[in-house]
Amino acid sequence: MRCKKCGATAAIHMRQHKLALCEMHYVDWFQAQTERFIGKYRMFAREERVLIAVSGGKDSLALWDVLLALGYEADGLYIDLGINGGLDYSKQSLARIEGFLAGREGGSLHVVDIAGVYGATVPEAARLTRRGRAKPCAVCGLVKRHVMNRVARDGGYDVLATGHNLDDEAAVLFGNTLNWQLGYLARQAPVLPASADGLARKVKPFFRFYERETAAYALVRGIDYLYEECPFSVGATSIRHKMTLNLMETDSPGLKLQFYLGFLRAKEAGALAGMAEARPVMEPCERCGQPTTAGVVCAFCRLWEARRSGDER
Amino acid sequence: MRCKKCGATAAIHMRQHKLALCEMHYVDWFQAQTERFIGKYRMFAREERVLIAVSGGKDSLALWDVLLALGYEADGLYIDLGINGGLDYSKQSLARIEGFLAGREGGSLHVVDIAGVYGATVPEAARLTRRGRAKPCAVCGLVKRHVMNRVARDGGYDVLATGHNLDDEAAVLFGNTLNWQLGYLARQAPVLPASADGLARKVKPFFRFYERETAAYALVRGIDYLYEECPFSVGATSIRHKMTLNLMETDSPGLKLQFYLGFLRAKEAGALAGMAEARPVMEPCERCGQPTTAGVVCAFCRLWEARRSGDER
Repeated sequence: MRCKKCGATAAIHMRQHKLALCEMHYVDWFQAQTERFIGKYRMFAREERVLIAVSGGKDSLALWDVLLALGYEADGLYIDLGINGGLDYSKQSLARIEGFLAGREGGSLHVVDIAGVYGATVPEAARLTRRGRAKPCAVCGLVKRHVMNRVARDGGYDVLATGHNLDDEAAVLFGNTLNWQLGYLARQAPVLPASADGLARKVKPFFRFYERETAAYALVRGIDYLYEECPFSVGATSIRHKMTLNLMETDSPGLKLQFYLGFLRAKEAGALAGMAEARPVMEPCERCGQPTTAGVVCAFCRLWEARRSGDER
Repeated sequence: MRCKKCGATAAIHMRQHKLALCEMHYVDWFQAQTERFIGKYRMFAREERVLIAVSGGKDSLALWDVLLALGYEADGLYIDLGINGGLDYSKQSLARIEGFLAGREGGSLHVVDIAGVYGATVPEAARLTRRGRAKPCAVCGLVKRHVMNRVARDGGYDVLATGHNLDDEAAVLFGNTLNWQLGYLARQAPVLPASADGLARKVKPFFRFYERETAAYALVRGIDYLYEECPFSVGATSIRHKMTLNLMETDSPGLKLQFYLGFLRAKEAGALAGMAEARPVMEPCERCGQPTTAGVVCAFCRLWEARRSGDER
C-alpha cells in the first residue's frame, strides 16, 4: 500500500474511505478532517474557548493535540474519580496527561479531585446507592456530567468537548436503537446546544473517526496514552455492542459510519420528530443550580447527601 | 426441565419467556398464542377468508396447520417459481405441501406455475434484468407480491397471511434500521391494511414466534417440511443479520422480541411519525391494474414485456 498523496509506504489504510496515507499525510488529513467537522456541524468558532474533558486515553489526548495544532484556545479538565482497580487507574491516567502537557506550549489543565472536594471517591460513593453497588458506572457518569458542566460554566468556557469517536457513538446509538430508547435517541447528537437553563454546549469533534483512526493518530504523534480501559468497564454492554458492530463492519466496510450518519440524516429530515416530545422538563436543582429532571434536588446532590448521612450512621 | 403445566419432561424451553412445556402443552400454547396475536393485532375475524402463502417450509405449513386447527377458513397459495438449484427446489416444495394436504380435511390449494402462465421461470426472467443477473431475489419478490395480491383479489379473500416469524421480521427491521430506510420502516408491520387502490390486507400471525418455536411446532405436529433454504439465499444479507441477532440473543435472551416490540411501541407512540411522509404515491398500473409507484406500467408488467421483447430478438 502506498500513500495516496506522495507514494511513500502507507502507514494506514482506511477501507471505508478507500484511502491509504503515510504518517505525515495522515496527520495532515486527520487534523484537516477535524477542522472540517468542527465547521460542518457548527461546533465552535475560532475565537471561542474550549474545555476538553481529558481522561488520559488516546481519544481525548489526540483531540487536545489536534485543537492546539489547529490554533484553538483549548484547556483540559481531568476529573480524578479515585479509581484504583489494582493498577492505580486514576493516578496513571493523570500521569499520562501531565506527560502530554510537559512537552508542549499552550493549554492549561484543571484537575478536580472528587475525593478531595466531595469527601469520597466515585467507587466509595457508588457503594451507597442501589444502582451503584455492583458497578459504579451510572454514578460515575452522573458525577462526570455534573463536574464537567460546573467547570465549563465557572471557567467561562463557551463549549465542552469530549473525545468520543465513531465506535463509541455508534455503540451508544446501537444500544438505544435496539431498545428504541426514544428519549436518548432524541438527545444523541454530535452537538448539543447550550440550554437556557444552564447546560454547557457539548461537542464531539471526533464522532466521525473510527477508533483505529484516533489510535493511529495518537501513535504517529507519539502521544503516550493509557492503553487500559477503566477496570469497571469489563463486561459492559457498550463493549459487546462495539464487538457486534466490528463484526458487521468486517463484512461491510463503512457500516458504522453509514449507520450513524443515516441516523443524523433521518433526524434532520424530521422523520424522528415525534421523539422530541419524549424530552423531559428540566428545572434548576435547589442545591447546585444545575438543571435536573429529578425534582427539586438533582441526583448528583442527592448522592452526596446520602453519602453524608451514611457517614453519620 | 419439566413442563410448567403438567410436570412431564419438557420438549422445549423458551428462555425469553422463562417457560418450559411438554409436547402436548406446547401445541396448545402455540395455537392459543397464535389466536391471541390474531385478536390483539386485529389481523382478521372468525368469518373472514384467509389465503396463506405457502412455500413448503416449516413456517407457512405450521401456520396453515394452526389456522385449520383453530377453525379458520384458510386456503393455500403455492407459487411455482421454477427454481431448481440442483435439488429441484420448487418441485420438492410443492411435494411437501401436497403431502401436508393429503393428511387432512379442509383447506384447498391454489397453484400458480409462473413458467406456465408467464412463459418463463423466475430465474429465467431475472436474467433479463440488470438487478436480477447475479441473483433473482429482487425479481422473485416482485413476482410473489404481484401474484399473491392477484390471487387474493380474484379469489375474494379478505386477507393474505404469510408465515414470517420473529427472526425474519427482526432481521428485516435490523437491516432497515442500520440503513435508516425510513420508507421501509414506515411500512414494516405485522398488519398492513388493505388499500383503497387494490392491495390486499397482509398479516403475519407468527411475527412474535422465534424461528426455533415454529420449527419445534412443525416437528411436534409431524409436519414433513422442506428443510433447505432457497438455493439463491446463500450469502444473503438477511441471513447475516439473523446470525448477528442470534449472537446478541445468546447474551440477552428476549433481545429480538424486545427489539421488534419496542419498534412497534415507538411507532404507535407517534415517535416515528415523520416517516409516513416517506410513503410514495401509488397509481394503478395501466396493464394489470395493481397499484404501483413506478409510473404508468408497474415493474411486474415491465418485467414480462422485457422478457417478450427479448424472445423476439
